[in-house]
Amino acid sequence: MTFVHDGIEQISEQQHTDSARDLTTLLAALRASAAQRDREGGHAAQQKQWIADAGLLTLAVPREFGGAGARWSAIYDVVRELARVDSALAHLVGFTCLQVVSIDLWGNSRQREKYLRGTVEHRWWWGNAVNPLDTRLIATSTHDGGYLLDGQKGFCSGTRGSQMMTVSAHDPSTGKPLFAAVPTTREGITVHDDWDPIGQRQTDSGSVSFARVRVEPHEVLERPDTPYASLRTLISQQVLTNLFVGIAQGALEEARAYVHEHGRPWIASGVAKATDDPYLIQRFGEMHIQTVSAAALAARAANALDEAWQQRATLDAESRARVALATSEAKIVAHRAALDIGEKLFDACGARATHAPLALDRFWRNARVHTLHDPLDYRVRDVGRYALSGTLPEVSLYT
Amino acid sequence: MTFVHDGIEQISEQQHTDSARDLTTLLAALRASAAQRDREGGHAAQQKQWIADAGLLTLAVPREFGGAGARWSAIYDVVRELARVDSALAHLVGFTCLQVVSIDLWGNSRQREKYLRGTVEHRWWWGNAVNPLDTRLIATSTHDGGYLLDGQKGFCSGTRGSQMMTVSAHDPSTGKPLFAAVPTTREGITVHDDWDPIGQRQTDSGSVSFARVRVEPHEVLERPDTPYASLRTLISQQVLTNLFVGIAQGALEEARAYVHEHGRPWIASGVAKATDDPYLIQRFGEMHIQTVSAAALAARAANALDEAWQQRATLDAESRARVALATSEAKIVAHRAALDIGEKLFDACGARATHAPLALDRFWRNARVHTLHDPLDYRVRDVGRYALSGTLPEVSLYT
Amino acid sequence: MTFVHDGIEQISEQQHTDSARDLTTLLAALRASAAQRDREGGHAAQQKQWIADAGLLTLAVPREFGGAGARWSAIYDVVRELARVDSALAHLVGFTCLQVVSIDLWGNSRQREKYLRGTVEHRWWWGNAVNPLDTRLIATSTHDGGYLLDGQKGFCSGTRGSQMMTVSAHDPSTGKPLFAAVPTTREGITVHDDWDPIGQRQTDSGSVSFARVRVEPHEVLERPDTPYASLRTLISQQVLTNLFVGIAQGALEEARAYVHEHGRPWIASGVAKATDDPYLIQRFGEMHIQTVSAAALAARAANALDEAWQQRATLDAESRARVALATSEAKIVAHRAALDIGEKLFDACGARATHAPLALDRFWRNARVHTLHDPLDYRVRDVGRYALSGTLPEVSLYT
Amino acid sequence: MTFVHDGIEQISEQQHTDSARDLTTLLAALRASAAQRDREGGHAAQQKQWIADAGLLTLAVPREFGGAGARWSAIYDVVRELARVDSALAHLVGFTCLQVVSIDLWGNSRQREKYLRGTVEHRWWWGNAVNPLDTRLIATSTHDGGYLLDGQKGFCSGTRGSQMMTVSAHDPSTGKPLFAAVPTTREGITVHDDWDPIGQRQTDSGSVSFARVRVEPHEVLERPDTPYASLRTLISQQVLTNLFVGIAQGALEEARAYVHEHGRPWIASGVAKATDDPYLIQRFGEMHIQTVSAAALAARAANALDEAWQQRATLDAESRARVALATSEAKIVAHRAALDIGEKLFDACGARATHAPLALDRFWRNARVHTLHDPLDYRVRDVGRYALSGTLPEVSLYT
Repeated sequence: MTFVHDGIEQISEQQHTDSARDLTTLLAALRASAAQRDREGGHAAQQKQWIADAGLLTLAVPREFGGAGARWSAIYDVVRELARVDSALAHLVGFTCLQVVSIDLWGNSRQREKYLRGTVEHRWWWGNAVNPLDTRLIATSTHDGGYLLDGQKGFCSGTRGSQMMTVSAHDPSTGKPLFAAVPTTREGITVHDDWDPIGQRQTDSGSVSFARVRVEPHEVLERPDTPYASLRTLISQQVLTNLFVGIAQGALEEARAYVHEHGRPWIASGVAKATDDPYLIQRFGEMHIQTVSAAALAARAANALDEAWQQRATLDAESRARVALATSEAKIVAHRAALDIGEKLFDACGARATHAPLALDRFWRNARVHTLHDPLDYRVRDVGRYALSGTLPEVSLYT
Repeated sequence: MTFVHDGIEQISEQQHTDSARDLTTLLAALRASAAQRDREGGHAAQQKQWIADAGLLTLAVPREFGGAGARWSAIYDVVRELARVDSALAHLVGFTCLQVVSIDLWGNSRQREKYLRGTVEHRWWWGNAVNPLDTRLIATSTHDGGYLLDGQKGFCSGTRGSQMMTVSAHDPSTGKPLFAAVPTTREGITVHDDWDPIGQRQTDSGSVSFARVRVEPHEVLERPDTPYASLRTLISQQVLTNLFVGIAQGALEEARAYVHEHGRPWIASGVAKATDDPYLIQRFGEMHIQTVSAAALAARAANALDEAWQQRATLDAESRARVALATSEAKIVAHRAALDIGEKLFDACGARATHAPLALDRFWRNARVHTLHDPLDYRVRDVGRYALSGTLPEVSLYT
Repeated sequence: MTFVHDGIEQISEQQHTDSARDLTTLLAALRASAAQRDREGGHAAQQKQWIADAGLLTLAVPREFGGAGARWSAIYDVVRELARVDSALAHLVGFTCLQVVSIDLWGNSRQREKYLRGTVEHRWWWGNAVNPLDTRLIATSTHDGGYLLDGQKGFCSGTRGSQMMTVSAHDPSTGKPLFAAVPTTREGITVHDDWDPIGQRQTDSGSVSFARVRVEPHEVLERPDTPYASLRTLISQQVLTNLFVGIAQGALEEARAYVHEHGRPWIASGVAKATDDPYLIQRFGEMHIQTVSAAALAARAANALDEAWQQRATLDAESRARVALATSEAKIVAHRAALDIGEKLFDACGARATHAPLALDRFWRNARVHTLHDPLDYRVRDVGRYALSGTLPEVSLYT
Repeated sequence: MTFVHDGIEQISEQQHTDSARDLTTLLAALRASAAQRDREGGHAAQQKQWIADAGLLTLAVPREFGGAGARWSAIYDVVRELARVDSALAHLVGFTCLQVVSIDLWGNSRQREKYLRGTVEHRWWWGNAVNPLDTRLIATSTHDGGYLLDGQKGFCSGTRGSQMMTVSAHDPSTGKPLFAAVPTTREGITVHDDWDPIGQRQTDSGSVSFARVRVEPHEVLERPDTPYASLRTLISQQVLTNLFVGIAQGALEEARAYVHEHGRPWIASGVAKATDDPYLIQRFGEMHIQTVSAAALAARAANALDEAWQQRATLDAESRARVALATSEAKIVAHRAALDIGEKLFDACGARATHAPLALDRFWRNARVHTLHDPLDYRVRDVGRYALSGTLPEVSLYT
C-alpha cells in the first residue's frame, strides 16, 4: 500500500482513504518519538522500516517499474508532511527519491529495469557518496570497463542503513568524475558512525570509506549533459526547500498546540487567556505569513519542475534555468521561514518550553544544519543577477 | 477593442496580438508622463480617456451585457500592469471594476441590464461615495421608495471625472445604510477638488457634497446578505493588493533601468561596472524575492477568489472566509514589498536618482498612501487569530 | 586577590596587572571547557570553585564589609566577560551579586554585617527561591517573629551548590510576602537536580522543596518600599542585559576565530580566502553593528544605574523610572543581538560548524533560554507607552 | 548672543537661560514653516538670517577668534535639534561648521585670523565646492602663487546665499588638488539655482560655475597630511549622522503629536482612545528603540571625536581610525532609524496624515536624499572588515 497515488486514475476511493489513514498513523508515530530521537542521535532503524513499509520509497519510481510515478509536487507534499514531524527522516525519503531519479536519468534501460524495479521489490533505502566538494575518492580503471574505488567521502546522507548507494569518484586518468550504483554492502565499503551534528541527527550523513571497492562495468552510470538530466540538481534543491517549509509548518503547529495546552497569560497582559493576548496573536500572524509565503513559492517551484520534467529530452536550457530561478526564490524564503519560526516559537510558548526533554529547539537546530547546505548569500546573488541583468542561473552543483 | 479576452475561446490569434500591442502602447504612454503627473497632481482627464478607449472599463462586466467577463485573476493582471507605471490610474480602473461588480451583485435584473450594458456602451467611469467610516451622509425617505441625500462623504475615489457613481448613506429612520447608483451629474451633487495627498495623486479621491440629491426608487440597490455578495469587499482588497504588487514591480523595473543607464561603480568597489557590484546584485536579489513572494500570494488569492466567484449563490461562509484569509495574507506581504522596494530602489540607484523631476520617490509615496487604507496591524491580527486558534476572518468592512 | 578594584585608588599597578592576568586565565579555562559543559549539563562545581577563588563573589559587597564595592558598570563588565565564554556561569555570578545586594538593601545593620562580611570571609555562593510568579511556598508565623516554610519554588537559580540563599514565601495570615536569608543547608530544604533546559544548562535553576523549614526571627528581611530599594529589580534586569551582550560578543568572537582557522571560500565566490568574501564581510559588519548597539545601550543603562545608586535614600521615583526605561531599552536591543548573532554565526562559519561536539549552537540556545525570562513584547509595550504618552515604567516584578 | 557656551565657565546663569529660550523660539519658528518650505523648495534666506542672528554660525570657531569654541558633541546637539524640525537648514549649519574647521585645520595663522575672526564679525555663511567625486574644476597656476579656476562643481552645499566658500580644483600640472577659500561673490563665480531634489530641499546644494576665477596666493590652503587634519572627514560624517538622528527624533515627535491631536482608535481595536491601542503602543516602542540606539551611538562617536580632537598634532593614525569606526557604526544605525521612522510614522498616524500640505513625508524624503551621500553597503563593509579581520578603516574621502 502506498501513500501517494497521484495521477493513478484507477485507484479506488477506499484505497485513497486507507493511504491517508496510514500516513496519518505514521506521522503521529514519528511525532511522538521525535524529541527522544533528537536527543539520542544515531540511526533510526525502526522508523526507517515503518517508512519503507508505508511504501514511501517508491514515490519517484516510474509506474512502468511498479512505482508510484508521482509528480514532484506530490512527492514534495510527502516530504513536507514528514518534515513537520521529523525533518531528518523526511530528508532520507527525499534523498532516496533523489538517488532513484539519478538512476532514472543516468541509467541505461537495463540499469533502470534492475535498480528501479529492485527498489520497488526490495524496498531499498538508497544512500549516496556523491558530495561534489569532497574530492578524496579516487577511481582507477580496471580496463574491463569497471573500476576500483579508494578513499573516502563525507556527508554521505542516507548511506548508513541503506541497501544501495550512488557514488561519484575522481578518475585521475581522465580528469572526469565516475558515477556508479553499488550495493552498500559491497566488499571494501565501510560506513562510519560519525554523524554527530546539532540538528538533522538521523540523516545518516556520516562518512564512508572505500578500500579497493570493485565497480562492475554494468554498474557504471553515464550522466548525460542535457537540461533534462540536470534537473536532478533542482530536484535535490527542492527537497531541501520543502524540508524547510515543513520545519516552519511543524514549528508553528507545535507552538499552537503548546499555547493551547500550556499557555498562560502574562501577568501584565490584562487578558484572561493566553490566546487572547494581542501580542501573541500578532506573533502567530507573522509566523503564519512567513509559512504561507514559503509554501506558496515552494508550490510554484514544484509546478515549474513538474512542467519541465514532462518535457524530458525536449527541455531547453532556458526553461530549465527558469525552474532553477523559481527553485532559488522558494529556497531563500523557506530558509528564512524555517529559522525564524524555529526561533520565534519560543516567544509564543514562553520560558517553560525550553525544558530539554521537549526538544522544541529541534526545529531551529534542524533548520540551522540544513540551511547551511550551500550559502544563502550566493543563492541571493544568483537571483540578483537575474533581477538586475536578466542573467539566468547556470547549471552548477547547487543550481 | 479590449485588452482582456480571458476565457473567450472564439477570439482570434490576431485579436490577442492586437490587444497586447495596444496595452503595451498605453503603458508606455502612461509611463512617459507618470513623473509629471505625480508632480502636478489634479485630474488625469486625457489619460482616463485613453484607458476608456482601450476598453479597460468593461473588464468586470459580464459577457451577457457585452463586457469582457474576465476572471478576477485576469482583471488583476491588468491592474498590476497599470500599477507598474501609474498606480493611481490603476486604482481608478480597479475601482471602476469594483463599482461594476457592486451593480452586478446588488442590482436587480433591470438595474444590471441598465448599468452594466450602459458601462459597455458609454464607457462609463464609475466613482463612489461609500466610505463606510464616514457617516455624515444622511438619506431621508421620500415615501415613494426614493430618497433625498444630504451631507458629504470623504475619500470618494474615482468620482471626479466619472459619469456614474455608487453611494451609501445613513437612513436614521431605519438605522440602516442605503445603497444606490446615481449619475455623478445628478443635481445637488458637488464633487470637490480637494484631493491633495503625498501620493496616489490622480485617484480623484476628494470629497463629495450632497444637497437634496434625489435618489429614484429604481436607483436603490439591495445588498444581499450572502457570502457571495460579501465577496465584494475581498475584490476591493485584492485591487489594493495588486496595486501594491504592481508598485513593487514597477519600482524594481525603474531601478534596473536606471542602473543600466546611469549606474556608476562606487569608488571603493573595485569593479568596472555598477552591474558587477556584489552588494548591488544582492540588493536586486532581495528586492526580487520580495516581489515574487508578493506576486505569488496575490496570484494564489486571485485564484481562490475566482473559484469562490464561480460558486455564486452556493458559496458558503467558510469558503468565503478562506478567500478572505488568502487575501489578507497576500495583502500583508504586498504592502511590505511595495514600501520596501519603493525605498530601496534609491540604494540601488544612488544620490543622483533623487532629482525631483525624476519623481522616483513616487513609488514609495504611492505605496505609503495606499497601504494606509486600513491598518496593517489589524490585518495581521486577523491572520494571527486564524493561525493561533483557527478562527477565520469575519465579514467586515475590510475583510 | 580580586579582579575588580574599581575606585580603589590605593591599588598598585602590579595588583591591577595580576588581576587582569588572573581573569584572562580564568576566562581561557572556562572557554576551553564550555562546549563540554554544555553537552553534559549538570552542576559546574569545579568551575564555581575557580570563580570563587578568583574573588568574583564579592564584587557587590560594600567595601566597609571587605568587598570590592564595585560600581555596577564594573560588575557588569565582569558579567559580560564571563558571558562571552559561559553565560550560565556568568548568570551565577550576576545572581550572587543580586542576592548580595538584596541583603544590602533589605537587611538591617546586623544582617548586613553578618551576611555581607560572611560572603567575603567564606566566599559564599548565593542562591535564591524568590521567583514571584511561583506562589506555592507558604510561610506560617511561629509567633516568635520567625516562620515555618512549606511548599516549593521553581527556577531557583544558583541554589544548587550555594551556601546561602534568599527566599520569599506567601504568608496567608497577612497576604504579604515574607523575605528571608537562610543557609541552603537548613534542615527541611531539598534542592532538586531537575534543571534540564536547552541552554543555560549550569545556572543551577532547579526547584527547591521546603518541609517545615525554620526561619529564625533574625533571618527575616524587611523590604523597604522606596525607589532606592526597588533598584534591585533593575540590577537584576541589567544582569540579564549584560548576559545577552556577552553572548552576542562571544558568538561573534567564535565566528571570527572559526573563519580564520577553518574558513574556506565558497566555490562560486571567486576569492582566494574566506576572509575576502564580500558577503561574509557584510555579515560580520551587521553582526558587529548589532553588538556595539547593544553594548552602547547597556553601558548607558549601567551608568544611569550607577548614578541612581549613588543617590541612595534621596532617589526619587521619576529618576528610578528613567533608569528602568534605559534598562528596558538596552535589554530589548541586547535580546535581539544575542539571538541574531547566535543564529548568524553559522552563516559565517558554514556547514562544518554544526558538528555537535563544537556546540557552537550553545550561544543561540543560551540566548533563547535566557531571553524568555519575561516577554519581550511587554517590555516593548512599556517603552512604547513612554514614547507615545510619556508614561514612565512603574515599579513591577520585571521593571 | 549664542546658543552654545559649552565649556565657557564664566557664562552667567542668565545667559544660559536666554540662549535656551532663543533656541526654543528659533526651533518653533522653523517647525511652523517647515512643511511650506519643503513644498516650495528654493532658498531659505529669511530663516538663514534667523540662524545667523542666533549665533549658530560660530559654534566651531575657536574662542581665541571670538567663537563659541564648542565641543563637537555640543555642536552636534545643535545640529540634531535643528534637524528635528528642518534637516536641510541643520545641514547648512553643520556644513558651515565644517568649512570653518577646514580653515582651522588647513589655514596658516594669518588665514585663521582673517577667516575665523571674519566669521564671527560678519556672521558668514560658508559654502563649498569641494565634492571630491566631481573632477571638472581645473586650477591653472598663475606663477605668483595664485591660480585661475575654470570649470564647475556639483553638489555645492550651502554655496547659494553664502558669503564665503571653500573650493578644491584639479591642478593638471602637478596632478594634485588645490584648496582655497574665496568670497562667493568673487568675479567669475556663478552659483546656479539648480538644486531640485525630492528632499533636503533647502541645502542650497546646486552647481557652481567658475570662469577665470582668480585665487590669490594668500587664499591657497595647505592641507596637512596628518591624522588630526583628516578628522575633517569624520566631522563631516558625524554631521550627517546627527542629521539622521535628528530626522528620526523629529519624525517620532510629529507622530506622537499627531496621534494625540488627531488619532482615532481603529474600528476593530476595541479601545476607546488611539493611545490605548496595543499595536500603536508597540509601534512607538519600536520607533523609540531605534531612535535611542542611533542617539546613543552618535553620542559615543561624538565623544570619541572630542577626545581625538583634543589630542591635535599628537593624534596617531590608529586613534583616528577608531574614531572613524565609531563614526561608521553610528552612521549606519542612524541611517536606518531615519528611514524607518520616516516611513513608520504614517502607520502610527493613519491615512489622513498623508494630506500633502502636512508634508509629513518630508522626514522620509529628507532622510532618503541624505542617506545616499555615500553607499551604506560600503560603510558596512568597512565595519565588517574590522569585525572579521581587525582592519581599521583607512583615511578616505568618506571615512
